Amino acid sequence: MDEEVARLLAGAPDPDQPSAAAVAERARRVLRPAGALARLDELAVWLAAWQRSTRPAVRRPAAVVFAADHGVARQGVSAYPAEVTGAMLKALREGAATACVMARHVDAALHVVDVGVGDPTGDLVTEPALPSARFRACFQAGRDAVAELDTDLLVLGEMGIGNTTAASAVTATLLGGDAAERTGRGTGVDDAGLARKVAAVEAARRRVGAAPPLEVLRQVGGAELAAIAGAATEARLRSVPLLLDGFVVAASVAPLELLRPGALAHAVAAHRSAEPGHLALLERLGKPPVLDLGLRLGEGSGALAAVPLLRLAAAVVTEVATFAEWGLEPR
Amino acid sequence: MDEEVARLLAGAPDPDQPSAAAVAERARRVLRPAGALARLDELAVWLAAWQRSTRPAVRRPAAVVFAADHGVARQGVSAYPAEVTGAMLKALREGAATACVMARHVDAALHVVDVGVGDPTGDLVTEPALPSARFRACFQAGRDAVAELDTDLLVLGEMGIGNTTAASAVTATLLGGDAAERTGRGTGVDDAGLARKVAAVEAARRRVGAAPPLEVLRQVGGAELAAIAGAATEARLRSVPLLLDGFVVAASVAPLELLRPGALAHAVAAHRSAEPGHLALLERLGKPPVLDLGLRLGEGSGALAAVPLLRLAAAVVTEVATFAEWGLEPR
Repeated sequence: MDEEVARLLAGAPDPDQPSAAAVAERARRVLRPAGALARLDELAVWLAAWQRSTRPAVRRPAAVVFAADHGVARQGVSAYPAEVTGAMLKALREGAATACVMARHVDAALHVVDVGVGDPTGDLVTEPALPSARFRACFQAGRDAVAELDTDLLVLGEMGIGNTTAASAVTATLLGGDAAERTGRGTGVDDAGLARKVAAVEAARRRVGAAPPLEVLRQVGGAELAAIAGAATEARLRSVPLLLDGFVVAASVAPLELLRPGALAHAVAAHRSAEPGHLALLERLGKPPVLDLGLRLGEGSGALAAVPLLRLAAAVVTEVATFAEWGLEPR
Repeated sequence: MDEEVARLLAGAPDPDQPSAAAVAERARRVLRPAGALARLDELAVWLAAWQRSTRPAVRRPAAVVFAADHGVARQGVSAYPAEVTGAMLKALREGAATACVMARHVDAALHVVDVGVGDPTGDLVTEPALPSARFRACFQAGRDAVAELDTDLLVLGEMGIGNTTAASAVTATLLGGDAAERTGRGTGVDDAGLARKVAAVEAARRRVGAAPPLEVLRQVGGAELAAIAGAATEARLRSVPLLLDGFVVAASVAPLELLRPGALAHAVAAHRSAEPGHLALLERLGKPPVLDLGLRLGEGSGALAAVPLLRLAAAVVTEVATFAEWGLEPR
């Protein structure tokens, strides 16, 4: 699918520079010292560019959480049994999970998409995680989920026991480096489990070797990772600004940027997680995180936590008076 | 006033450990891996301890912004003329300033207290910023402003042309170190202005030498800094959790901690600003910032930006189901 998605991305719209320039200019004229809001002003300009509006705002944020099971879970790489994926899918759907509470508090719509709970992928240690047809179907499911939304800020999240192993395998295969440097404790695996996890990542990476970026995602990723790559692609095609959650989401979308530099220009890293591979991905993607709170939950939670900051960033440019409106000369 | 305030602080209530312990325990039992929300869980426990409640929440946040003028402004230490303090006081009162927009978006009440706009302090280079009687009156004005509030999370902020020079003078006098390391560009002063600012800070520090912490604040601080120290003291006496804004607020409250270790246990640093002296104060106070976005505005803006995170931190402990409530065994 690499060539096909590269062609798709080649046709994606660029950011709207006139809107970005207008908001940057207004940020210099509002009632505060120029540059005093630093990263918040940058985020307002980014929202303007992708919302294609001189009045950026976060009024209809939407989160999509993709869930799936992983064959590699049988290797004992997680602190939790695979059955927890299904239980958490139910909790996400019924409003009991962390992401549900966060979404309510930040006024975001929350959509949960099952792309393989109870239907685990192949064990990435010994075989491709996804046959080509299923990889394509998952990617398309991600695109479809975003195509149905009416949103001005998209959050992508995930749930799947075993998926930080997949994310580490994708990271190690794409970026190289020692498997142990790309692998963390996920939900909190113990030392023996971490050793099994590192071994699984190393074995997966050796099995695949060098391959095109989306082929890496198919081989050692997972169903929700493929869906997230599709969702991020659709957001890019529709010029929807995207808040990336943590390590698994970063590993899901990194292949797009490697396939076509700039593919993720519409995306901001909401936070830096506790997973060691995450920082390496963010550095490779050139995306400094907005938050750094040691989070390691997933479910889109880290990105949902950043939604109010994006809302504020837009408001303090559009709603604060300018010096001229206030009858003052700027210095 | 040092002895008097030390006695006050000695009578302040300790955090409510049973509430804190109950919330920490619930955080371990909700539907996510223990510790997965890291800093957010710590903030929920902190809120519980000072709200003295096993159901912490941020329902009535309140910000108090203290404004005043500074005699040192005549030394050419700011990018803006002293008249801007009055114009910004008006903008804050009439809802046009950045803090007003932020407060509206985070559902916080915003109170603006004038403790000396148009009535500048003495020039801290050559004389005490505040006579003892005025220092006492400002400290009391801060206490009174907090005593009148009904709030579950207090934000303190400031506005005053010249006040980062005062904050740097306080920091350099309290912590030592090279004056240049404690002094930044504030609202954006140019190189020549920065040189004047460093010279003013060094001269002020030499004039005062070693002195008790609140005496330092009287000598080289300012009216709004004294009020903030009083406000933080009143919050401590009333067990109200306090979000500290940036450099000027940190310099205003640091004397309390030096006077009586633990005096600021009810306070969290909302963010790390671009001012170099701020980090030194946060390290001395042992307060890692929640946000690190390069902000350098004041007005309480950095703390207001963190309010939604505090609200979320509480909600994801109190409103997420526990494993037991959800019919699952924790691992």
